[in-house]
Amino acid sequence: MFPKNAWYVACTPGEIDDKPLGRTVCNERIVFYRGPEGRVAALEDWCPHRGAPLSLGRVVEGKLVCGYHGLEMGCDGRTVAMPGQRVRGLPPIRAYPAVERHGFVWVWPGNAAKADEALIPHLHWADHPEWAYGGGLYHVKADYRLMIDNLMDLTHETYVHATSIGQPEIDETPCTTKVVGDEAITSRFMHDIPAPPFWRMALRANGLPDDQKVDRWQICRFTPPSHVMIEVGVALAGHGGVEAPKDKKAYSIVVDFITPETETSMWYFWGMARNFRPDDRALTAQIRDGQGKIFAEDLEILERQQANLLHWKGREMLKLNIDTGGVQARKVIERLVAAERGAAAA
Amino acid sequence: MFPKNAWYVACTPGEIDDKPLGRTVCNERIVFYRGPEGRVAALEDWCPHRGAPLSLGRVVEGKLVCGYHGLEMGCDGRTVAMPGQRVRGLPPIRAYPAVERHGFVWVWPGNAAKADEALIPHLHWADHPEWAYGGGLYHVKADYRLMIDNLMDLTHETYVHATSIGQPEIDETPCTTKVVGDEAITSRFMHDIPAPPFWRMALRANGLPDDQKVDRWQICRFTPPSHVMIEVGVALAGHGGVEAPKDKKAYSIVVDFITPETETSMWYFWGMARNFRPDDRALTAQIRDGQGKIFAEDLEILERQQANLLHWKGREMLKLNIDTGGVQARKVIERLVAAERGAAAA
Amino acid sequence: MFPKNAWYVACTPGEIDDKPLGRTVCNERIVFYRGPEGRVAALEDWCPHRGAPLSLGRVVEGKLVCGYHGLEMGCDGRTVAMPGQRVRGLPPIRAYPAVERHGFVWVWPGNAAKADEALIPHLHWADHPEWAYGGGLYHVKADYRLMIDNLMDLTHETYVHATSIGQPEIDETPCTTKVVGDEAITSRFMHDIPAPPFWRMALRANGLPDDQKVDRWQICRFTPPSHVMIEVGVALAGHGGVEAPKDKKAYSIVVDFITPETETSMWYFWGMARNFRPDDRALTAQIRDGQGKIFAEDLEILERQQANLLHWKGREMLKLNIDTGGVQARKVIERLVAAERGAAAA
Repeated sequence: MFPKNAWYVACTPGEIDDKPLGRTVCNERIVFYRGPEGRVAALEDWCPHRGAPLSLGRVVEGKLVCGYHGLEMGCDGRTVAMPGQRVRGLPPIRAYPAVERHGFVWVWPGNAAKADEALIPHLHWADHPEWAYGGGLYHVKADYRLMIDNLMDLTHETYVHATSIGQPEIDETPCTTKVVGDEAITSRFMHDIPAPPFWRMALRANGLPDDQKVDRWQICRFTPPSHVMIEVGVALAGHGGVEAPKDKKAYSIVVDFITPETETSMWYFWGMARNFRPDDRALTAQIRDGQGKIFAEDLEILERQQANLLHWKGREMLKLNIDTGGVQARKVIERLVAAERGAAAA
Repeated sequence: MFPKNAWYVACTPGEIDDKPLGRTVCNERIVFYRGPEGRVAALEDWCPHRGAPLSLGRVVEGKLVCGYHGLEMGCDGRTVAMPGQRVRGLPPIRAYPAVERHGFVWVWPGNAAKADEALIPHLHWADHPEWAYGGGLYHVKADYRLMIDNLMDLTHETYVHATSIGQPEIDETPCTTKVVGDEAITSRFMHDIPAPPFWRMALRANGLPDDQKVDRWQICRFTPPSHVMIEVGVALAGHGGVEAPKDKKAYSIVVDFITPETETSMWYFWGMARNFRPDDRALTAQIRDGQGKIFAEDLEILERQQANLLHWKGREMLKLNIDTGGVQARKVIERLVAAERGAAAA
Repeated sequence: MFPKNAWYVACTPGEIDDKPLGRTVCNERIVFYRGPEGRVAALEDWCPHRGAPLSLGRVVEGKLVCGYHGLEMGCDGRTVAMPGQRVRGLPPIRAYPAVERHGFVWVWPGNAAKADEALIPHLHWADHPEWAYGGGLYHVKADYRLMIDNLMDLTHETYVHATSIGQPEIDETPCTTKVVGDEAITSRFMHDIPAPPFWRMALRANGLPDDQKVDRWQICRFTPPSHVMIEVGVALAGHGGVEAPKDKKAYSIVVDFITPETETSMWYFWGMARNFRPDDRALTAQIRDGQGKIFAEDLEILERQQANLLHWKGREMLKLNIDTGGVQARKVIERLVAAERGAAAA
């Protein structure tokens, strides 16, 4: 269950620089490529001639040329040319609104008439000289909402990520959740605790001592359809926590774009935006590698959780206090899906 | 088709010494672990919180701690504790009767109220100083009854195991089958024949000559739900066969615990109990390796036979003389399953 | 959708010289082996005793001996013998008409009463001292008709095989298709063009210059059920093309026997028959290796095209001019299938 009238992250620009990319988003099989003037284009991954995937073709002068019989597609889904053949009568294929922005390629898998680029989330850290970003992509065989649940309830860090970012104080500190419009926000503030390994590294990278008690915060923000941005950080204890002056804290934004592939699989774009030593590429690589290892620890849990949900069909998951963030996010999703269905029925 | 009100071998004790084990028995997804005082426990492999498999967790002071959010389960299926959460209202999960005995972990996947430890078969050779046991486990993608058929009709040794235990005399000697209560017994006695390679090795290990004619016997005992114990041996010819004095024969018990995983897959625990040179660990290892190779020869046949049965659905297998043991064992199984269904309907 | 009353290529003789071969043809699971006097035999791959695949057995004195319990099958599908068992009452299994001819094993998966060896196509190049043949086998997860389409429309060479046999002139030259009875023939004649790499090699192998303009031809002949023979060649330009004298041209026959395995998979026997340097085995191997690489380039396209057709069920492929050969071939197939169904209903 996912809304289709929404902007999803489909890929990173680098994935389509050299050749077309076939990727399924919300059950839509789509080919992404760079059309005229290098602009991103997205079409059904179906050649109108014989149904071969266009993603096996190549781009020539902004046109997507089918790798089977050379049919040339325009980015509007119409056939532009075909060797020895008039193409005016050929049926068009579906074109999807697609935009490159903030270092990602965004796609709107639903009703194109409703696609509004203004709805693409503004990422203040992207394209900003004081910030650096590094991230990666995982394919996960699980309902994308299980990943939202995961990210909106960080008590799992204590167990799944015990050796890196987990610590018992996460568990012991209650979180609070509020809903503002379509946004769900779960926050947790921990005071006067030891810093776990990842944050000791970050303190050092910020020129701060790594052996002192800290205040730590986690502010998880879900926005539809399935983005979760998490403000995370530590400040030397007693300097105001999240409000501490810049030279007393280390912080960053955990970036999660969770794109449904099918009902039971997802493309998980994860990363971290930081505003310290933004030009230090080695640090970016180091953080990305570390984060990649940590986030990989969730995958087996989620895939096996999905397998259990399919085995025990109809069995409900509990909705406890710690689950409130995920529960509220799912409510937003359900509302959007219901609205789409209502609009489709009307 | 399998009875669920029965004791099945689930695993060996060593499989759960260090961490929990997830294993499906009779379509039940179960986590096995060592609970309080190291006693074996078995629960549904479903965390009551969010459905993650408990088998991904770990055991702390006899409690099974979910690897996702730290929920602690008692061996009765009730949640004992959860960080920051009252657990009294949490729904219990199913606990399965499980017992460690005779060097195996036994589970009762059906109605727990009917589980009676007295029904666990007595294995006279287990925990007996004059006997040694070695064995292994195979996962086989076939209906477990195909393995019962296999073991109750040893004429297949002539073809499948031609280079180790097979010999034409098995084929040429008729077997007899009798049913005593829920037990089916198929016996074959061969007289004055050459010993095949495996038995020549066993004769040597017993300090007997390996180049003389022997009398050979095979007594296959099926007991429900799916255990097959086979008394096998050779005696120097003319000394009374199975009744020969101990210093004229070599014999052992082929041990087969066949545990259904699903309708078309099984866990096959195979092994051999012998009463010669019980303290010779090297010999135990040698026999286990040899038996493992021999028994692996059956797997492709059974899996491909299963594939054929699925392809030609509804096509019947023949029931010839040599199949009588398997046919009788299946009748016992059918009777037990019918009784369970009757009891469930009433 | 495939006719079953037809001769299909099942395997090459070498595949059954040493042991039986299990292979599915038109959804029929069949075991092929050499029966009495080395003659090819084909039976259902199902032992009438317990359903084990007979292809796991071995051949002894022309009888197929089941690898499970030693049952001996005659090539008529009747059980000849079984250890300790009368076999007269055993139900026969199906025997399929099978013939070795022209270097292939042919099977008739349909109504045996209609099998007429005279219907096996005559291959004038087989067993002919002036011709040599080399080829291979690919298993392809696609409807066999997609391969027929592929071979009856060679414009794909320009795109799929751009570095070997493709050239823009194929695209630019219209083809003509005619239907003669059950045969569909698509021809293309190109004049005064450069020779692509494969044909430059062939010119050299024929002692001809490889740097001159050539006339090139492609004559694709579909015959039911699914054979496509393609006469291909080049002649030095201006000497009459396909009619040029032998010392001015290089030509061969692309041989394609396309055997349905299931509705969505096939056995693809490909090869090339040539009439130059027939005794040069190194050349045969060189051509086979080159052709194998070229033909492998089609497999991903076809398998992904098949996946697309399953995803977008009911969506039609277009039938443009270049598709006429495949369209006509499919019409022949449909006519034959309809006739079979009509006969079966009557």
